[in-house]
Amino acid sequence: MADTEDDDQASASGLRDADESGSLYDSDGEIKSEFLDELKAAIDSSDASLVCARAGSLHEADLGAVLVALDPDERFRLIELMGPEFDFAALTEMDDNIRDEILAELPNRTVAEGVRDLESDDALTILEDLDAEDQAEILEALPPVDRAQLQRSLDYPDHSAGRLMQTSFVTAPPFWTAGQAIDVMRDAEEENLPDSFFEIFIVDPAHRLLGNIFLDTLLRAKSSTPLEDIMSVDRRRVEVTEDRQEVALLFQRYNLVSIPVVDEGERLVGVITIDDAVDVIQEEADAEVKALGGVSENEELSDTVWWTAKSRFVWLFVNLITAFIASSVLGLFEGSLQKMVALAVLAPIVASQGGNAATQTMTVAVRALATRELSRLNAYRVILREVLVGALNGAAFGAITGLVAAFWFGLSGLGVVIALAMLTNLIAGALGGILIPQALDRLRIDPAVSSSAFVTTVTDVVGYGSFLGIATLWFGLG
Amino acid sequence: MADTEDDDQASASGLRDADESGSLYDSDGEIKSEFLDELKAAIDSSDASLVCARAGSLHEADLGAVLVALDPDERFRLIELMGPEFDFAALTEMDDNIRDEILAELPNRTVAEGVRDLESDDALTILEDLDAEDQAEILEALPPVDRAQLQRSLDYPDHSAGRLMQTSFVTAPPFWTAGQAIDVMRDAEEENLPDSFFEIFIVDPAHRLLGNIFLDTLLRAKSSTPLEDIMSVDRRRVEVTEDRQEVALLFQRYNLVSIPVVDEGERLVGVITIDDAVDVIQEEADAEVKALGGVSENEELSDTVWWTAKSRFVWLFVNLITAFIASSVLGLFEGSLQKMVALAVLAPIVASQGGNAATQTMTVAVRALATRELSRLNAYRVILREVLVGALNGAAFGAITGLVAAFWFGLSGLGVVIALAMLTNLIAGALGGILIPQALDRLRIDPAVSSSAFVTTVTDVVGYGSFLGIATLWFGLG
Repeated sequence: MADTEDDDQASASGLRDADESGSLYDSDGEIKSEFLDELKAAIDSSDASLVCARAGSLHEADLGAVLVALDPDERFRLIELMGPEFDFAALTEMDDNIRDEILAELPNRTVAEGVRDLESDDALTILEDLDAEDQAEILEALPPVDRAQLQRSLDYPDHSAGRLMQTSFVTAPPFWTAGQAIDVMRDAEEENLPDSFFEIFIVDPAHRLLGNIFLDTLLRAKSSTPLEDIMSVDRRRVEVTEDRQEVALLFQRYNLVSIPVVDEGERLVGVITIDDAVDVIQEEADAEVKALGGVSENEELSDTVWWTAKSRFVWLFVNLITAFIASSVLGLFEGSLQKMVALAVLAPIVASQGGNAATQTMTVAVRALATRELSRLNAYRVILREVLVGALNGAAFGAITGLVAAFWFGLSGLGVVIALAMLTNLIAGALGGILIPQALDRLRIDPAVSSSAFVTTVTDVVGYGSFLGIATLWFGLG
Repeated sequence: MADTEDDDQASASGLRDADESGSLYDSDGEIKSEFLDELKAAIDSSDASLVCARAGSLHEADLGAVLVALDPDERFRLIELMGPEFDFAALTEMDDNIRDEILAELPNRTVAEGVRDLESDDALTILEDLDAEDQAEILEALPPVDRAQLQRSLDYPDHSAGRLMQTSFVTAPPFWTAGQAIDVMRDAEEENLPDSFFEIFIVDPAHRLLGNIFLDTLLRAKSSTPLEDIMSVDRRRVEVTEDRQEVALLFQRYNLVSIPVVDEGERLVGVITIDDAVDVIQEEADAEVKALGGVSENEELSDTVWWTAKSRFVWLFVNLITAFIASSVLGLFEGSLQKMVALAVLAPIVASQGGNAATQTMTVAVRALATRELSRLNAYRVILREVLVGALNGAAFGAITGLVAAFWFGLSGLGVVIALAMLTNLIAGALGGILIPQALDRLRIDPAVSSSAFVTTVTDVVGYGSFLGIATLWFGLG
């Protein structure tokens, strides 16, 4: 799966063509419309050499962005016109829907041709979402070594280290000297080396990982030094079945640039590099933001209306149930509401303020659980802190709301009642906001996805219940 | 600013002591309580050698996590007991409050000693939050070269590339051969080289950046090849004043491992590595989650109750105003509410369902703006999509809510009214959720921070207004 073109390393590292791409985007970071218009014109007139002149020297990331900006039929035409000049790595730089749409249009033969020049992790990204039939046909068209490697990677579970890793890396036995290792690399065929690498791995004859040596260490060592004297006895590694989120956490915690992947027999089978980990970090952050907003982590801007509406329906349905629960609390006090309509006007304020305060607490809790800042070690301190914050703001907003309500309806008792209800609800919101995510986390349920519905139910029920309950007692409306 | 200990590169790359740290955490990812108890006992008995035995071999990230898990006075005692064995890099692995608390307790002399062994970017992290007096005293105690370098970095604006970069890197003139470059590095004093590096930069006599060569390319080249023949003519670089968020975007887009930093004269002044960019990516994601939840991006679990309550007050105050605006809409229909109390019970359902649907749309919009997936190029398509999704779910939830309401209150007209209001509000919510973030973004206001208050106001006002308005007309309550 190694590249055979000399200039590809520079390209893979994003260092070629920066001049063109520097001027590819306007000051808002969008692709310049002049560039797009010229490219579209070249595609329209089926001018292959003009298309190649425009798009052939783009970095894969920029080429991916350009594809996304084109109309669906233009995307396919561009790839067709560029022929072998089209860098399939560009297909890894867009969301799944657009990639799948493009791949569905391309003959499997073309995809197989394009995929064979890629690093194994990029090839995997392109192959993994295809249906089994297309996958088999493309694999069939690849050289046996590549096919076997890709097939093995596809057999690892989704979201595992095995799906993330790249399977080409450089190994050496411990008894080689630094000079020997350098000579071997210098004389190696390009296609037997990865496109770019930062370290070599020291393995025993059974391919078990003994340690690693970063290239700068290798360079600084004397030629005659045996590798085993300069290798780090690297015990930081991940199993091929490890979840990719755990892998990303290791990269973040230890500022790694790469981590070796081993099978159950401690044999080296791949290496995950930081750029893949960055994608995972980004996707996890994305998933968390979406989960908190009640959106599926898989939702993309390119999804169809029907799919999007269906996927959001579930969350809204859960919310509808909680809204009915809250309204049934209002229903309990129908008599009071009838006697004093001001209560109906003010009740939503208590519920809304509690909901917002609880969301603040919940956001902090969900974040801190994700980053492991919140743990059993500091749980009590954090709970206490949140309750105190809730009480302070409850008192402050109780006072403000009480004054406004008393003046609005000319009824000082109403001010006292709403102030007490506000204080109660902000404390309840703080407790709900901090306890519910932790409880869900202990139950191994993602707190980002599920906390919000529970928390809002708490603040709606307590908000309506406390306000109308206290009012009913205070004004003797029961 | 380069380390003088031989084993520090392994440590900086997170590859030493993995064995200990592998067993430092329990299966929930928390530091094992046995480890903490033993360490606390060693601190209590002021047994310096025992403390060093326990904590001396920890990776800086683990040592940082251990410090956070200790009580405040134990943190200071640990550093004191470890003396020169304490790795100050651990202080970069915790939140600002805890770091500042620890630094405030340490004599400036000790901080200066600890900082001089660090990479310049780590030293900067420790120094930048100190007050000017302490900063000056610590800088004074450093060797002149380090002092000048740090002082210059501190002069760059907050959140700029200059604050992120490390100022030690390897350069070579273009006319050297690969063999010459390797020999020079091999013979260089450890302290004249960075702790670890992946590439060398080719500069002209005025130190202007001409290109770069990754170490694997250098290793593969023939000894006699001039560097200028193998260098990438690297035009991808950032200015020292560039915002760090833009820098992080470049890393993500082009899968970079490092990027050179130049001054206004195109002279090479530093290099930013991916681990620093990962921190920025993480912090930006963190800021976005918090902003959407109505929490300041600077809020940490270690903040005081008072500071936290104050910082959250602002957002809650904005929400209170929007809640009063919504309630005043309810107030307009006091007559109708009095005549038909069922309206007061059902109105919050319409508002809440609209609010949730709008939040889904807003989350997608804010996310897509942050990742640049939503731009002028696809704005119309996305707006249309959201409105259609809102209409579909509005119709679905209108039907469901209408049926439930009609049965609950035994009044089929009420079902029709709430169904119409629900449809109206979910379309309004979709429009608000997609247009408001884009409008704020054009006005250069962070949509993550401000969208939610506006969007909720829209769905509350339209929810209450449409439901009570249609009801008043339908039942002739006016």
